[in-house]
Amino acid sequence: MYEDRIRRPALMNKLTSAADAALLFKDGMTVGMSGFTRAGDAKALPMALVERARQAPLHLTLLTGASLGNDSDGLMANAGVVARRMPFQADAALRRKINTGEVMFIDQHLSETAEQLRSGDLKAVDIAVIEAVAITADGSIIPTMSVGNTANFVQQAKQVIVEINLSAPLALEGFHDIYVPGERPHREAIPLLTPWQRIGATAIRVQPERIAAIVITDSPDSPSNALPPDEETDAIARHVIRFLDAEVKAGRMDPTLRPLQAGIGTIANAVLHGLIDSPFRDMTMYSEVLQDSAIELLDSGQLKMASASSITLSAAMHEKFIANIEQYRERVVLRPQEISNHPEIVRRLGIIALNTALEFDIYGNVNSTHVGGTHMMNGIGGSGDFARNGQLSIFVSKSVAKDGAISSVVPFAAHVDHTEHDVDVLVTEWGLADLRGLAPRERAPLIIEHCAHPDYRPQLRAYFEEAKLGGGQTPHVLEQALSWHARYKREGSMLVK
Amino acid sequence: MYEDRIRRPALMNKLTSAADAALLFKDGMTVGMSGFTRAGDAKALPMALVERARQAPLHLTLLTGASLGNDSDGLMANAGVVARRMPFQADAALRRKINTGEVMFIDQHLSETAEQLRSGDLKAVDIAVIEAVAITADGSIIPTMSVGNTANFVQQAKQVIVEINLSAPLALEGFHDIYVPGERPHREAIPLLTPWQRIGATAIRVQPERIAAIVITDSPDSPSNALPPDEETDAIARHVIRFLDAEVKAGRMDPTLRPLQAGIGTIANAVLHGLIDSPFRDMTMYSEVLQDSAIELLDSGQLKMASASSITLSAAMHEKFIANIEQYRERVVLRPQEISNHPEIVRRLGIIALNTALEFDIYGNVNSTHVGGTHMMNGIGGSGDFARNGQLSIFVSKSVAKDGAISSVVPFAAHVDHTEHDVDVLVTEWGLADLRGLAPRERAPLIIEHCAHPDYRPQLRAYFEEAKLGGGQTPHVLEQALSWHARYKREGSMLVK
Repeated sequence: MYEDRIRRPALMNKLTSAADAALLFKDGMTVGMSGFTRAGDAKALPMALVERARQAPLHLTLLTGASLGNDSDGLMANAGVVARRMPFQADAALRRKINTGEVMFIDQHLSETAEQLRSGDLKAVDIAVIEAVAITADGSIIPTMSVGNTANFVQQAKQVIVEINLSAPLALEGFHDIYVPGERPHREAIPLLTPWQRIGATAIRVQPERIAAIVITDSPDSPSNALPPDEETDAIARHVIRFLDAEVKAGRMDPTLRPLQAGIGTIANAVLHGLIDSPFRDMTMYSEVLQDSAIELLDSGQLKMASASSITLSAAMHEKFIANIEQYRERVVLRPQEISNHPEIVRRLGIIALNTALEFDIYGNVNSTHVGGTHMMNGIGGSGDFARNGQLSIFVSKSVAKDGAISSVVPFAAHVDHTEHDVDVLVTEWGLADLRGLAPRERAPLIIEHCAHPDYRPQLRAYFEEAKLGGGQTPHVLEQALSWHARYKREGSMLVK
Repeated sequence: MYEDRIRRPALMNKLTSAADAALLFKDGMTVGMSGFTRAGDAKALPMALVERARQAPLHLTLLTGASLGNDSDGLMANAGVVARRMPFQADAALRRKINTGEVMFIDQHLSETAEQLRSGDLKAVDIAVIEAVAITADGSIIPTMSVGNTANFVQQAKQVIVEINLSAPLALEGFHDIYVPGERPHREAIPLLTPWQRIGATAIRVQPERIAAIVITDSPDSPSNALPPDEETDAIARHVIRFLDAEVKAGRMDPTLRPLQAGIGTIANAVLHGLIDSPFRDMTMYSEVLQDSAIELLDSGQLKMASASSITLSAAMHEKFIANIEQYRERVVLRPQEISNHPEIVRRLGIIALNTALEFDIYGNVNSTHVGGTHMMNGIGGSGDFARNGQLSIFVSKSVAKDGAISSVVPFAAHVDHTEHDVDVLVTEWGLADLRGLAPRERAPLIIEHCAHPDYRPQLRAYFEEAKLGGGQTPHVLEQALSWHARYKREGSMLVK
């Protein structure tokens, strides 16, 4: 059995249970696991490691592509298995451990982890745990619904554990394009000139003798937890579409736009969903993750093709995707995240980057990660890779949170992930601020009047007016700059009564 | 006369005075001028525009490579000629106008201005004013001591004014390598694989009919205003060299290191100067500006070659450079700033980026631009291009300023130009903090104990301890986060008495 999944007969004797594979792990090891935005994560080993930690001390440094599904991150964190974690996560239980300081979280640009492993800036991966559709006759590993950092982990790990997931259809073979940049100082240009180009192999090469164990699983990825569009996300989508339409009419791009990137989550997904009612045709995506909206746009024909590092769908959309998988194979490419997010490619293609802000200030500095300036939400993800190096950097947010108690537009961002240098356009349900070519003093009125919730505009105007009395390129009243966040903590609302 | 400088006879009739050339300018125009870190700036037109503004209203948007010399920026600002300015400046008088809000300053990554002009995100350049060594027989322009955005301005401007500077030796021909990326969406990979490679032309092509005026000048660039090394910059240099030496010993790079970038100014120049006493050999530079230290390292033989967008030297070093110019031509390449700072190349080569911080916080967020969080100093320059995309990002600063009244290490950066994601190493005269692979809570003790001035360490420790009580990935006491800056304003010192 499994001949179609393990096509190199000599590897059959590596078949083992997850519990036995877990015995390979030792306290203090660095482990690289597949998985990117809940897609393509290992299903069995995380649970087996939780079990193993009950018998012996097991504190690992865990690297992944991005977030894992199946509550793996939370279960491993609660069991004490995860001592250090990078480069991204999105799990409530792990988040608690991070914010109490029990787990050290290193929040990284998603294009950079592989580079830092390669250059030795990070400790080398001891064991890679990789979900696969199959192992080919030459021992190469065919990934499932994401690529992430998997190729890099496999390249570096002393031992590779492969989880063959029977629920991942064999028809996924051919979706992946595995290209890994060479070592410095003799690195070539990456030969990718269009989003649809394939430049690598369809599977991850590995010397078969490094495959230490093969475990069979049969459970699907966790479905996407993006919420459906609502009135506010619809409004945001309309503003973005009107803006892009004006760019086309001004002759700055043709109606195919530039390749689109959209961050993970509800708002970006909703904006992309809104593109179904747009005048744009033959669009392409060059993104890190494809959500339901990308499949909808592929189906509507408005999206010609889509490149990403993972596919994260709702249960219903996943079913549809699998049922029609043959028709997507020619139009979807899954790449390593250092290629999907690579500065070289992002700049060359001139990506339109669409990412979600937690909050932004009146000058256009964006906080993507820290609630209240201190507590980690998920991580910066790829937003910085795209916002810095793309052609257009758009950040979207609802204007308020917590029933209006929190304004997303504040005098001073309590944490900065994207500086004013990297933010071209800000959008909320109230409107859009086009910041290109503007100085901070010109940005503030636009952001206040176009993006802030009307309830907060008087407070923001008053702050800006008072700040200007002190002068400066970026006027502030430093004594009050963070007072909104302090007021929320103290009184439960940023609004001055 | 000038046959060697204007080699296309038909252009001789374009010779005119600066005053007459200034008549081409109209109120509200966008002007692109050569000039990068005081090198290769137009000498006559800025003064002629100041004169012209006395007769007619003249408010311009002025783009350059980076800072101008000869007090041009200040004189034009004081005359009201500069209404908008980008992407960088370093002039005391202009800075005052920026900080009062009289001049709108758009502070940009130096690699991005050309890209924004090309994509139409910025208003097109009406007139380019370019300093040149000569105009070739086919009408191409040979730049002088910098390239900056000159090729882009020339490509876009309706009219080009060329200033032929007789004090710039003809022997500068051959130093420049002019390559301009193509239009999207059909852009090729940039074929530059090593710092020394030449991929373009030695002069800037222009249709001769767009050359509207040629003005003869004969005055040199302003000399560099970098201060000589001192005890503290020597200490910083020693820490950096010890760190790089450890990288070599750990096998992460060979003794040629990676191509070096060093920001403009005293500290970076001093650190590079310190490399003369280092064990590294056959080094290369891939930087935006070459200062005295680069020439010293070329002369000592430790630097094999250097690539940049400008050469900014002290008067003595300039004289030496010109006297021996033939021996430098094979070892020095001057490129457009979008190539010297290009994310594609910076990532491919794995640049070691060495830039100066005004201040940084205990978690590694860096302020490069805003004094007291509000008042513009010079601009972010290329630091973001290199810090984000290079292999190693090092920021250096003296631990205190104003005789100890200001600590460069603060609880919370009052302005953020470089986020913790982009800062690998921090250095002051007291020591070095290697932040790679560390979470914010791990970074703080290193930064406090290795980098802060001992007088400020107790205050920083107390802040960090109190902040941790509130929890979070990046603990803060928001009510006190900016209190150090407020205290300095109120009491003249950040130190608690």
